[in-house]
Amino acid sequence: MAQTFKLALIPGDGIGPEVVAEAIKVLDAVASAEGIEFEKTEFQLGAARFLETGDVLTDEDLVAISAHDVILLGAVGGVPGDPRLKNANIERGLLLKLRFSLDHYVNLRPTVIYPGVPSPLASHGDVDFVVVREGTEGPYVGNGGVIRAGTPQEVANEVSVNTAYGVERVVRDAFARASARRNKLTLVHKTNVLTFSGNLWKRIVDEVGATFPEVAVDYLHVDAATIFLVTDPARFDVIVTDNLFGDILTDLAGAISGGIGLAASGNINPDGTYPSMFEPVHGSAPDIAGQQKADPTAAILSVALMLDHLRLPDAADRVRSAVVADIASRDGSARSTSAIGDAIVAALS
Amino acid sequence: MAQTFKLALIPGDGIGPEVVAEAIKVLDAVASAEGIEFEKTEFQLGAARFLETGDVLTDEDLVAISAHDVILLGAVGGVPGDPRLKNANIERGLLLKLRFSLDHYVNLRPTVIYPGVPSPLASHGDVDFVVVREGTEGPYVGNGGVIRAGTPQEVANEVSVNTAYGVERVVRDAFARASARRNKLTLVHKTNVLTFSGNLWKRIVDEVGATFPEVAVDYLHVDAATIFLVTDPARFDVIVTDNLFGDILTDLAGAISGGIGLAASGNINPDGTYPSMFEPVHGSAPDIAGQQKADPTAAILSVALMLDHLRLPDAADRVRSAVVADIASRDGSARSTSAIGDAIVAALS
Ligand SMILES: CC(C)[C@H](C(=O)O)[C@@H](O)C(=O)O
Ligand SMILES: CC(C)[C@H](C(=O)O)[C@@H](O)C(=O)O
Repeated sequence: MAQTFKLALIPGDGIGPEVVAEAIKVLDAVASAEGIEFEKTEFQLGAARFLETGDVLTDEDLVAISAHDVILLGAVGGVPGDPRLKNANIERGLLLKLRFSLDHYVNLRPTVIYPGVPSPLASHGDVDFVVVREGTEGPYVGNGGVIRAGTPQEVANEVSVNTAYGVERVVRDAFARASARRNKLTLVHKTNVLTFSGNLWKRIVDEVGATFPEVAVDYLHVDAATIFLVTDPARFDVIVTDNLFGDILTDLAGAISGGIGLAASGNINPDGTYPSMFEPVHGSAPDIAGQQKADPTAAILSVALMLDHLRLPDAADRVRSAVVADIASRDGSARSTSAIGDAIVAALS
Repeated sequence: MAQTFKLALIPGDGIGPEVVAEAIKVLDAVASAEGIEFEKTEFQLGAARFLETGDVLTDEDLVAISAHDVILLGAVGGVPGDPRLKNANIERGLLLKLRFSLDHYVNLRPTVIYPGVPSPLASHGDVDFVVVREGTEGPYVGNGGVIRAGTPQEVANEVSVNTAYGVERVVRDAFARASARRNKLTLVHKTNVLTFSGNLWKRIVDEVGATFPEVAVDYLHVDAATIFLVTDPARFDVIVTDNLFGDILTDLAGAISGGIGLAASGNINPDGTYPSMFEPVHGSAPDIAGQQKADPTAAILSVALMLDHLRLPDAADRVRSAVVADIASRDGSARSTSAIGDAIVAALS
């Protein structure tokens, strides 16, 4: 009997449904070739759903989604400035709520400059690194508050919360990945200014590092890290960093590697207590939605990360090889979203 | 009688004294040409002073420095990892203490890609923007703390403090600069996640913006801003942002515009209650200290910002023109720190 996985699909808003359709095409093709099966349930979540029902993500949604093995998400978010969405905050209420509720403490974001992809950098070596971004702590926790809102005496605080428990588990995951790659780990933080959390991150990296003697450890302040990402991105193997720094660095990493049309990500709960979620780094791009203009490659590469996570490395490599082959054959002429999906399916074998 | 200014000099550590020496050469030359005078007092501050005396910055130092009209700082910080500096934190105790004590709420960081400077970007238009970074609030305040330090139950919090008072004054300054430039202001924040402080920044930008109808206002999340800095930096005129985002964006801006060897900055108290401080963005680079290898251009451009601040625009423009002329004549061959200083003096005319 075929191995079967329960897949929760969240196509979302804007270009989300278009890119997810292509990702599923590729997934179905590789699954049938590998003799595995995906039972899909689609969830209507995002700005469109909010406008229809007033709900962003209900407890029932969360329970239903949690009953799956993995999640594939397209993109969520309405038209910027839409007054009807003013109080929705789809990002916090949906995307971040999923990451936090499902304990996605490893936010995995690989960067590869594929042969044939035009990078904005004039020159770069062999770029192939992965950012392990903490996903459940730091400035993203939503702690803090406001007094005297709307007055000249307003004070707005944001609290970044960092725990040894939370830092240790993501650092351990990052070391394990470095050990399976090129044995190099770079901690990125701002320890000279954020000394409370910085000391914690440094201590944990030292402690966990002692159990991975084969991994060389390096440290960069976040400001300096942005410099190296444009002047010498080939130096990186695994970067481990906090939630906010990871957010910033991975958009920059996406840009130098040919645009976020190619950037895939995994929101991973390595313990397997909750389903992990895979999504392109790009947003819903409502301006080009429904026009078959979006590049589904990031969504398709997110499927590869999902297959990795399900311990189906052959299937994952098949997807990645097909993407690499397709990218290498690109000549700059425009193709529709589905034409790109079809080409990648054709390249699968 | 010549107009006279009291200048506090903090050469600092590493390459600091070398680059300050060249900045002073240029300052003296332009001052004598313009008929102005600078009375200099040198302050020995930094890692070297700490190792000698155990002091980082005393109250007496602060009082003495405050009695000056302006401050020029080279760079501070010892050899990374020097165990004797373990508990010093020169950055917080000296650089940030000066910025906070002297109420440097405008941290001004211009970026220009000068003709002839090799940028890591394959292509870019006319890049000339300025980042107005808030200098006295945000995650830099040092609020927060640790419980159960060193244990598996450690919790480390960092509090970003943002006030309407603090945001309003820097936003006002940024709008005034935009109005005197190309009438474009971009707020950079992360309002979708840091909603407490994000709402405050947005509100204040809306309110102050209403009094600058000629300035077009734009908003970018900090992650997206890093993308545009490498794909379309010419789009920016004035960026206004918080302390930490400004730190990150200006290092990236320095990198795309030819390296932090050229990046100048001003820590400005626009009210004139305290002396403003001008410094290259680069650090003390102890590895190349004393070898006449450092590029003093960033320090010299910081002198130009200082002259701007003292309302000596002719003198400032003279310095900038000399730097531009020198940069245009660079052919990539190595010159000593003092040879670059001499060449810029010679180009002053
Ligand atoms: C949409 C936003 C909340 C999100 C984040 O900040 O994490 C996005 O930028 C990302 O990187 O996935
Ligand atoms: C040295 C450090 C405290 C400082 C900062 O973070 O502000 C530096 O990076 C800068 O940008 O001037």
